[in-house]
Amino acid sequence: MNSLTLSAKDDCLGWAARDVSGVLSPYNFSRRDLGSDDVSINITHCGVCYADLIWTRNKLGDSKYPLVPGHEIAGIVKEVGSNVHRFKIGDHVGVGTYVNSCRDCEYCNDGLEVVCAKGSVFTFNGVDVDGTITKGGYSSYIVVHERYCFRIPDNYPLASAAPLLCAGITVYAPMVRHKMNQPGKSLGVIGLGGLGHMAVKFGKAFGLNVTVLSTSLSKKEEALSLLGADRFVVSSDQEEMKALAMSFDFIVDTASGDHPFDPYMSLLKISGVLVLVGFPSEVKLSPASLNLGLRTISGSITGGTKVTQEMIDFCAAHKIYPNIEVIPIQYANEALERLINRDVKYRFVIDIENSLK
Amino acid sequence: MNSLTLSAKDDCLGWAARDVSGVLSPYNFSRRDLGSDDVSINITHCGVCYADLIWTRNKLGDSKYPLVPGHEIAGIVKEVGSNVHRFKIGDHVGVGTYVNSCRDCEYCNDGLEVVCAKGSVFTFNGVDVDGTITKGGYSSYIVVHERYCFRIPDNYPLASAAPLLCAGITVYAPMVRHKMNQPGKSLGVIGLGGLGHMAVKFGKAFGLNVTVLSTSLSKKEEALSLLGADRFVVSSDQEEMKALAMSFDFIVDTASGDHPFDPYMSLLKISGVLVLVGFPSEVKLSPASLNLGLRTISGSITGGTKVTQEMIDFCAAHKIYPNIEVIPIQYANEALERLINRDVKYRFVIDIENSLK
Repeated sequence: MNSLTLSAKDDCLGWAARDVSGVLSPYNFSRRDLGSDDVSINITHCGVCYADLIWTRNKLGDSKYPLVPGHEIAGIVKEVGSNVHRFKIGDHVGVGTYVNSCRDCEYCNDGLEVVCAKGSVFTFNGVDVDGTITKGGYSSYIVVHERYCFRIPDNYPLASAAPLLCAGITVYAPMVRHKMNQPGKSLGVIGLGGLGHMAVKFGKAFGLNVTVLSTSLSKKEEALSLLGADRFVVSSDQEEMKALAMSFDFIVDTASGDHPFDPYMSLLKISGVLVLVGFPSEVKLSPASLNLGLRTISGSITGGTKVTQEMIDFCAAHKIYPNIEVIPIQYANEALERLINRDVKYRFVIDIENSLK
Repeated sequence: MNSLTLSAKDDCLGWAARDVSGVLSPYNFSRRDLGSDDVSINITHCGVCYADLIWTRNKLGDSKYPLVPGHEIAGIVKEVGSNVHRFKIGDHVGVGTYVNSCRDCEYCNDGLEVVCAKGSVFTFNGVDVDGTITKGGYSSYIVVHERYCFRIPDNYPLASAAPLLCAGITVYAPMVRHKMNQPGKSLGVIGLGGLGHMAVKFGKAFGLNVTVLSTSLSKKEEALSLLGADRFVVSSDQEEMKALAMSFDFIVDTASGDHPFDPYMSLLKISGVLVLVGFPSEVKLSPASLNLGLRTISGSITGGTKVTQEMIDFCAAHKIYPNIEVIPIQYANEALERLINRDVKYRFVIDIENSLK
């Protein structure tokens, strides 16, 4: 066995997009050798996030093919480096949207690695510090610095844990940052997809009165009975919207499609806060929507390591589980098509362990 | 003397606009009889606010003529009602942008009368609870419920106090609400007019490092030497703007002209806050400007009675005085024209006491 063979062992099996078509197919590649601070993880599950679609289809023009997507990773530790103290072989762990950062700036030191001053390294299609392009969780295993791994309690299903690492933390982090965990306050949730349905669950766990604002009446019954929302309003119903004027302390806006902001801002009480976690093409509103009611719009992306671990532990303690549709890797292309059509309740999770061979 | 004579005593002399031309001229009218909770105030000074222009010229389509503008009022108590305990004849007092509210809602109870659930009554062109149209401070006296009067310390010049009641509180209230009073933090101030120059002064008093962002180089010298700003940047200078990327904890945006928001948002650090106090025609930005840096835009208008009194006392204690150009009432029309051309450093104050006869 020579060094070439060693460095190009290609023992990681993944599914990759080869071009802008975004079509995924089997692809063998190498992971880096285990470093002293690294954890090597046998991936059991990976959630399907809209980000997978954005980059497999090169929507932002920066995709580097072959591209292995996936940043909602759950699995079991198979090997640890000599300096690793937090994890041991057999532990259940998760990896989210980033796998590296400078570990030295004020944000990293504060557990906010996602906004590292030197830039965090995304879990796939990112340029790592050694120049390699990161490859995501639609694959058999991954090697990650222990700092970017999260402990998943043994009694929490790995399939359910996967969506927490992006969809879950993306809504949990701003909800906690903006003090939405005050029982008795009222929350509006715009959009009922992967992120929105988690916002409803967190809202109820925080003791909030939760209203779902959706474009589609079809999700009403499930929102109320299955997810536990207190109220469901179709946002095009002007009478119902009018009745909600100045009624919410907070809104979590998970909609990535273009939508007006003024009608939603008018639903906030004085000093109310709308947290934006989606990526519409623009945010446009009247200054009066902000000024006259002392209202706020604040943006957020996923969360640092500190709040991510807190969120996983919160989900385990409160028995909060994403609603998922478990699929084999062979269904990934169809799942991405269904994601475009919003035809999923509420997150696809790929059963890597049993289908990726 | 019959009742008609009593109710139409017309003993208040003001200057009013009669139509959309906005031209002001002398006008006699009545104030309401002094109620048990009322204070009657001989007006000595009134600041000239952009709002005066908006309503004298019917820019919002809701002006009710004859219209007496002015909501930055300073004066001396001439009479008090039987229940008034906070003021006595001879006291120096101020009146700001509102003169009534329900005094019963959660916001009023919290000293936030400006956002009263039933609507606060503006100091001019407002419909008061008795149905009369309020008339502002371009007049010889005013009758106001004591709750909406503020104590001005005897050693604080009445001419200087006037602009505090709108320009001052409009920037002070959100600065305190968003915890900008933390020494060592950095502040950007967009626009250097009546509001902006007060934001600079408050910023320095709070111990902040203050940068003025202006469209015009002409104000640089004064901003640095007279107002005490630490830095002055012309916002069209892309090199200088680039050098400021991610450098501010806070921005106070006082510009009411249309301007892009993304370039300013990029100057904020992670979790930075831009407070909007101006009224451009719209607020438009990329969601990335909010999401990627966990940034916030928050709106504000003037302030409640609690923070207004606090601000006046803060100005007196820290010897903070607006920079004013004192004018006679006969110069009011020309002053409004100069306001349109931003030709004022930094606030006109009408010397009512000595010129309105």
